[in-house]
Amino acid sequence: MSEKPWDGRFQESTDKAVEVFTSSIAVDSRLYRHDIEGSMAHCRMLAKQGIITNDEAEKMVAGLAKIKGDIESGHFAYSDSLEDIHMHIESALTQDIGETAKKLHTARSRNDQVALDIRMYLREVSRDVIALLKDIRTILVTLAEKHDGVVMAGYTHLQRAQPVLLSHHLMAYYEMFKRDEERFTDGLKRINVMPLGSAALAGTTYPIDRAYTAELLDFPKVSANSMDSVADRDFIIEFISASSICMMHLSRFSEELILWSSSEFAFVVISDAFTTGSSIMPQKKNPDIPELVRGKTGRVYGNLMSVLTLMKSLPMTYNRDMQEDKPPLFDTVDTLTACLDIYRRMLPNITFRERRLSETTETGFINATDLADYLASKGLPFRDAHEAVGRTVAYGLGNGKELQDMTVAELKGFSPLIEDDVFAFLETRNIIDRRISQGGTATANVREAVAQAKRDLGL
Amino acid sequence: MSEKPWDGRFQESTDKAVEVFTSSIAVDSRLYRHDIEGSMAHCRMLAKQGIITNDEAEKMVAGLAKIKGDIESGHFAYSDSLEDIHMHIESALTQDIGETAKKLHTARSRNDQVALDIRMYLREVSRDVIALLKDIRTILVTLAEKHDGVVMAGYTHLQRAQPVLLSHHLMAYYEMFKRDEERFTDGLKRINVMPLGSAALAGTTYPIDRAYTAELLDFPKVSANSMDSVADRDFIIEFISASSICMMHLSRFSEELILWSSSEFAFVVISDAFTTGSSIMPQKKNPDIPELVRGKTGRVYGNLMSVLTLMKSLPMTYNRDMQEDKPPLFDTVDTLTACLDIYRRMLPNITFRERRLSETTETGFINATDLADYLASKGLPFRDAHEAVGRTVAYGLGNGKELQDMTVAELKGFSPLIEDDVFAFLETRNIIDRRISQGGTATANVREAVAQAKRDLGL
Amino acid sequence: MSEKPWDGRFQESTDKAVEVFTSSIAVDSRLYRHDIEGSMAHCRMLAKQGIITNDEAEKMVAGLAKIKGDIESGHFAYSDSLEDIHMHIESALTQDIGETAKKLHTARSRNDQVALDIRMYLREVSRDVIALLKDIRTILVTLAEKHDGVVMAGYTHLQRAQPVLLSHHLMAYYEMFKRDEERFTDGLKRINVMPLGSAALAGTTYPIDRAYTAELLDFPKVSANSMDSVADRDFIIEFISASSICMMHLSRFSEELILWSSSEFAFVVISDAFTTGSSIMPQKKNPDIPELVRGKTGRVYGNLMSVLTLMKSLPMTYNRDMQEDKPPLFDTVDTLTACLDIYRRMLPNITFRERRLSETTETGFINATDLADYLASKGLPFRDAHEAVGRTVAYGLGNGKELQDMTVAELKGFSPLIEDDVFAFLETRNIIDRRISQGGTATANVREAVAQAKRDLGL
Amino acid sequence: MSEKPWDGRFQESTDKAVEVFTSSIAVDSRLYRHDIEGSMAHCRMLAKQGIITNDEAEKMVAGLAKIKGDIESGHFAYSDSLEDIHMHIESALTQDIGETAKKLHTARSRNDQVALDIRMYLREVSRDVIALLKDIRTILVTLAEKHDGVVMAGYTHLQRAQPVLLSHHLMAYYEMFKRDEERFTDGLKRINVMPLGSAALAGTTYPIDRAYTAELLDFPKVSANSMDSVADRDFIIEFISASSICMMHLSRFSEELILWSSSEFAFVVISDAFTTGSSIMPQKKNPDIPELVRGKTGRVYGNLMSVLTLMKSLPMTYNRDMQEDKPPLFDTVDTLTACLDIYRRMLPNITFRERRLSETTETGFINATDLADYLASKGLPFRDAHEAVGRTVAYGLGNGKELQDMTVAELKGFSPLIEDDVFAFLETRNIIDRRISQGGTATANVREAVAQAKRDLGL
Repeated sequence: MSEKPWDGRFQESTDKAVEVFTSSIAVDSRLYRHDIEGSMAHCRMLAKQGIITNDEAEKMVAGLAKIKGDIESGHFAYSDSLEDIHMHIESALTQDIGETAKKLHTARSRNDQVALDIRMYLREVSRDVIALLKDIRTILVTLAEKHDGVVMAGYTHLQRAQPVLLSHHLMAYYEMFKRDEERFTDGLKRINVMPLGSAALAGTTYPIDRAYTAELLDFPKVSANSMDSVADRDFIIEFISASSICMMHLSRFSEELILWSSSEFAFVVISDAFTTGSSIMPQKKNPDIPELVRGKTGRVYGNLMSVLTLMKSLPMTYNRDMQEDKPPLFDTVDTLTACLDIYRRMLPNITFRERRLSETTETGFINATDLADYLASKGLPFRDAHEAVGRTVAYGLGNGKELQDMTVAELKGFSPLIEDDVFAFLETRNIIDRRISQGGTATANVREAVAQAKRDLGL
Repeated sequence: MSEKPWDGRFQESTDKAVEVFTSSIAVDSRLYRHDIEGSMAHCRMLAKQGIITNDEAEKMVAGLAKIKGDIESGHFAYSDSLEDIHMHIESALTQDIGETAKKLHTARSRNDQVALDIRMYLREVSRDVIALLKDIRTILVTLAEKHDGVVMAGYTHLQRAQPVLLSHHLMAYYEMFKRDEERFTDGLKRINVMPLGSAALAGTTYPIDRAYTAELLDFPKVSANSMDSVADRDFIIEFISASSICMMHLSRFSEELILWSSSEFAFVVISDAFTTGSSIMPQKKNPDIPELVRGKTGRVYGNLMSVLTLMKSLPMTYNRDMQEDKPPLFDTVDTLTACLDIYRRMLPNITFRERRLSETTETGFINATDLADYLASKGLPFRDAHEAVGRTVAYGLGNGKELQDMTVAELKGFSPLIEDDVFAFLETRNIIDRRISQGGTATANVREAVAQAKRDLGL
Repeated sequence: MSEKPWDGRFQESTDKAVEVFTSSIAVDSRLYRHDIEGSMAHCRMLAKQGIITNDEAEKMVAGLAKIKGDIESGHFAYSDSLEDIHMHIESALTQDIGETAKKLHTARSRNDQVALDIRMYLREVSRDVIALLKDIRTILVTLAEKHDGVVMAGYTHLQRAQPVLLSHHLMAYYEMFKRDEERFTDGLKRINVMPLGSAALAGTTYPIDRAYTAELLDFPKVSANSMDSVADRDFIIEFISASSICMMHLSRFSEELILWSSSEFAFVVISDAFTTGSSIMPQKKNPDIPELVRGKTGRVYGNLMSVLTLMKSLPMTYNRDMQEDKPPLFDTVDTLTACLDIYRRMLPNITFRERRLSETTETGFINATDLADYLASKGLPFRDAHEAVGRTVAYGLGNGKELQDMTVAELKGFSPLIEDDVFAFLETRNIIDRRISQGGTATANVREAVAQAKRDLGL
Repeated sequence: MSEKPWDGRFQESTDKAVEVFTSSIAVDSRLYRHDIEGSMAHCRMLAKQGIITNDEAEKMVAGLAKIKGDIESGHFAYSDSLEDIHMHIESALTQDIGETAKKLHTARSRNDQVALDIRMYLREVSRDVIALLKDIRTILVTLAEKHDGVVMAGYTHLQRAQPVLLSHHLMAYYEMFKRDEERFTDGLKRINVMPLGSAALAGTTYPIDRAYTAELLDFPKVSANSMDSVADRDFIIEFISASSICMMHLSRFSEELILWSSSEFAFVVISDAFTTGSSIMPQKKNPDIPELVRGKTGRVYGNLMSVLTLMKSLPMTYNRDMQEDKPPLFDTVDTLTACLDIYRRMLPNITFRERRLSETTETGFINATDLADYLASKGLPFRDAHEAVGRTVAYGLGNGKELQDMTVAELKGFSPLIEDDVFAFLETRNIIDRRISQGGTATANVREAVAQAKRDLGL
């Protein structure tokens, strides 16, 4: 039975099963570095304010540095009886430097301490995620440039709809990840707020200088209400929500890579180094990475639901339930960063089968819209043009002929407006290059979009 | 059997059950105004670009205005066979002004049209929510001022922890709703982007001017990639996510109001006009509104999960699944705005029982931390002071005495450092007013927080 | 301002906005029939027990019957001020038959009344769902028989894995829906329990006969604890959970139908009557129904999360939050039954393109496992056989040759055990028919599975 | 770089980052025992069918037994390059017994193997959960007996509603956990089905005897369709769903224990051994266990959402996404069993403060319903009686008098039907004991419920 930081009023010692059940050390040991850095800043502030002496502060800072070294070199023992990372570090400090260590907890509580640790952790993680998203955007731009001019079918309802450039398709993901990045950046504004000094819930009686602690820890802002500071976790939910949206985007990209790896689509080949096989079926080469990323989407969604449920209906201020914010947060961070990282590695190892992509624009009446546009350009209202082309397609389906394979005479049967110039009009490249509306798939537009992206990325 | 806008290639007419199953008119009729305004702007842009004549544009705009009037006056018939609001309006326009109406759909598709409608709707709704949040923040500030100086127990783990000011407690919610407002404001940046002109997925061949349409519709930005524009709904998820967080905050406030309305807490009386009774138990007066708000939290969380699941793994670009984005979005908007609105009405109808609140600071050893601080201020390390006070509390529990009810002699038994000045030190008002750290509950701090809030709100 | 059933102790009338906010009549009017039937049984029991006279009971039952008629013929007015369906009916009864009506509420409360109504509704709905699932299973069996012997690629990781029978594939869904049916049947045990007589929460002082009420309403069981009876909604969560699993199965079937409708797979043609087109692209024929069903999956998942969140942490017994159980329940019922119904209609309107399906077994080295089995049957350990075939496949990929297109000499290069008999061994039909393990895809097995299914369905 | 079981067709070795990303060994090593037992049964069946020799089988079974021992004694090394527990065991077996080991994988695949392992694991876990629930039901019955006759306020809307027995309240939880148990038992029917022999997806060509394997492993049933067997995880979702409902029940119990531990309610004292304190506030004694259980509810809900999302829209049959079923399943199992176990330990360590509980029935007009019943028993229609009592309560509130504190004269002012006998009628014990309806709170009824529960539990 260990000594607890709150033994005084208790007559019985904690049941061993309770120690195990309530311990969070297996989870929150991850925060050791932020906890130590936060404590160092707290020490320095206390000394600057004359609440402790400079000597005491130096002793504690040195002791904390040593503990950090011990943890990082693996010379640090964890125990459920010490509950959490905060108690572990304080206990080690007491062993190392003696009584002085007890002053570390002056003018703070575990409630504001853990709020500080998570915020420090999460702003670091947010920046990592932003960097990963930037890498992926860079790779997408590189791929778009590399495959400049490659045509393929664009899909709606998983039906071939209209021809597009592969680079246009890739740049759609560029836009999604750009918004994801913005969301993480916006969230940072609410993460990057210094809560220390809120103490247990009501603030502290010591003449502390919270602005100074914030400055030492590079926080631009100090939290405004001590009760709110220890009670809320909305910034965690916001982070997991942005992560869920990002995973949603990754799940869509993954779905496409899985489809594209099938025999039926056969649009891409993911390199052997980024696929796996089957223990039974010797021919198999499976797109495991996109499958796993798609599957891990559920994990992050689940984490979001977990923290939302957790926080529902909790009265002010801190409640022990909130200890459960960390497992879903850490799992989200690990999952999202692993998925982004493996995507970053995999994307350059995908071969796009350009000829096959091009073939998809030659069948399935993918140029039907353009035949309607052709008729509309000759004065037919679009709705009527659509109807005429619809009948032409029905005829083509019945006779096994694509539009470009019909004769002018056949085509005239559906509209007398059709002339010889229709065939050039229906060529894939022309179809694409006519879509010059801002954001459209015309080659020039897509090249400009790529150029703009490179400017945005500082490339 | 109605005429469909895509009949041409089809040999069979749509099964009636399919019409009912696929129809969205019961849901998306809500978008009629945004659809019509979007169409008007589209017309004007088409005319400006010479794609249609000014006469045609005027005729269409007038026809659309008439339809808007018809809908608003209840003279408009809906039918499942016309699928959605877009087809209803176009069909009505064709009946009213004839063939010209068919030109309305030039250079656009339902894919970009519905994206436009939702974005117009959602930016309006976001602004409404922001206004409601501002109202609630204003009411909170008013309540904080009205109850200036009222003391109460602050809680952690639903245990009395340290005395705080009621206004400090109320201002914690002020901070939460302020962050909610920021989230909706940040989300608006991603909502307020003009997608029209993306057409079905690839852009359009017509020489449209998207920037002009954006200008007419007061959009600061035009979407950059046509595929992304019709394929993504991340801005909806972001809105429902911000709504979920806001409902989480409301659920916490509601939980407190429910607790506070109980016989056991008895902190507040919600006026008769804002409570209901029981058909069986004549004495009952139930806090139905906070209960319902707490319950509706699940509804918004569910909507979030619904759209996240919906969008998971959808390949590019538009898929019919995405029609299902609107029921959870609209339900979220209705639920959130109803909850904020009823809170806005109810809050001023709550009476805080100041004497009862004050009593909660007199029992439960709520001044124990301050006794520890007292000892610490006399040189005892905080951890030791904590231990001594813990034993004092154990003694008090056993003897039915609060700290302030013990004699100096009794207290000295736990630490010789204790002197007569301890009693003034332990008075609630002093305890509160010593918590002068930034964001703490000292009266002066809370008054400054209120003053700052009023400046922020322009009051 | 209406009269409330609880006006006595209230000094102020309910705020109009509160009436609207708390009213559930727009949602729970759906329960009118169950509410009336429950009330009739309650009347009859009260009379049998001598709590009211037979005359009073007859008068009330007749009055209730009339109200039922009025509601069903549309001659019944709803108003938010009457809160819910229970008050509407009681209020109408009072208008119709006068003072006697007030006795209807003897020995019951709205708390047990609404619990009764939902349980009556939900057992009816469960039986409907079970019937729909039986229909779909019947159709699957019919399709399996109709396509007896049709071969296709079986997939893992969306890669062609091994040949299977189309009917085997269809019967996999048969099994899933069979388990779904079992889950709804199991849930019924917990739904079909009679709660009336639990009153507000503590039971009633009247000498009621709950078993008799249960008998009249065809409940096999009476609830055992009055507090539990009015406080729990676990049977609703269980129903929505079973619905979520069923939607998950439907989403998988839908995903396959969408894939199979693509130009790339081209395995099926859904009839024109069960697809829709595009307002822009004349060639499009979209699998809207499976897409919408797939999308609606999120809706049911969201409803599950909604009720789970709702019920979390509610103290005993009834809380007003629980009014929010009905919107997600009703939406789940509507969504699930609509999806099952439209599937029931659509499935017979799907044409399987048998030749195309057959082709998928001829490429992609889908017979590679069987070559390994061939080698294993000649004594090579399976892992070694797998490795040899892996190299053969690599050779085939490099030289554009399927296994069956290689010469014996070429094949012998990878294993000297290969002889001429290999080609028969690798024929699709033989591959399939060798898989005679119980539950395997051999024609005889699948025919037996179909026969068993028909026996199970009583066909 | 390790050897993979599918190296044959691959030209490049797997990227190290891919090995780490796709490895599941850190998670699925938990299944080692089930994997080994399943493999032993498979061996024996293969030998019985003459597919391998008895010698080979014995060698493999002995080798597997040794590996099991090594794992359990900690002498087994794990590595990401061996992917999963199946490969680890097979690889160790090959090292131990040489070439023969390779025959273990005859007539099976990892797809059916992992399905077997999870089903074996989950039926074991289900039985553990059922046993834990039985323990908790036993404890509840014991507590109900121990506190026989203790009265307390029953609540609706967290308002005092009617007096009940504490044992009645406790038995409400008994009923909930009984239904939870039933759900796990029902789920077992669908878990306890033997999938081995389904092979990769299509069944196997070997003359296996699946019924024999099932017999060896004590499965009552063999799965019917090989594709379904490797493709579905509905039984996992059903388990997590039942777990979510059970956690919902625990969260309600926890909420009550937290409320009841507050100074305001003060209904219970949880022993020191099952609570913790604060590092800052020396007086604090926090109900950490119920708080953590309440918080962990979100975790299980999140896991449910995770697997539902995971499985949504996956085409047949096995997809790598499905590897992600295990983290949420295992976390659910760990969380649920830890929560049930700690409840089992904590419940006997709760002291109910009987006098305080009794006091709650003496204020708050909790006997108002009974005054209305009193009037109704004298012939007044209940709705009118309710109204009269409502006015009496309003009078009492204004004059600070409970009903039992008024004079007959005062009471007569609200209804002339009131006589002297009213006071006995309004006594708590009488109020409770009049509620003799089946399932009501009358002492005799509750004693009978407890007796019935003991019979059900075999006590």
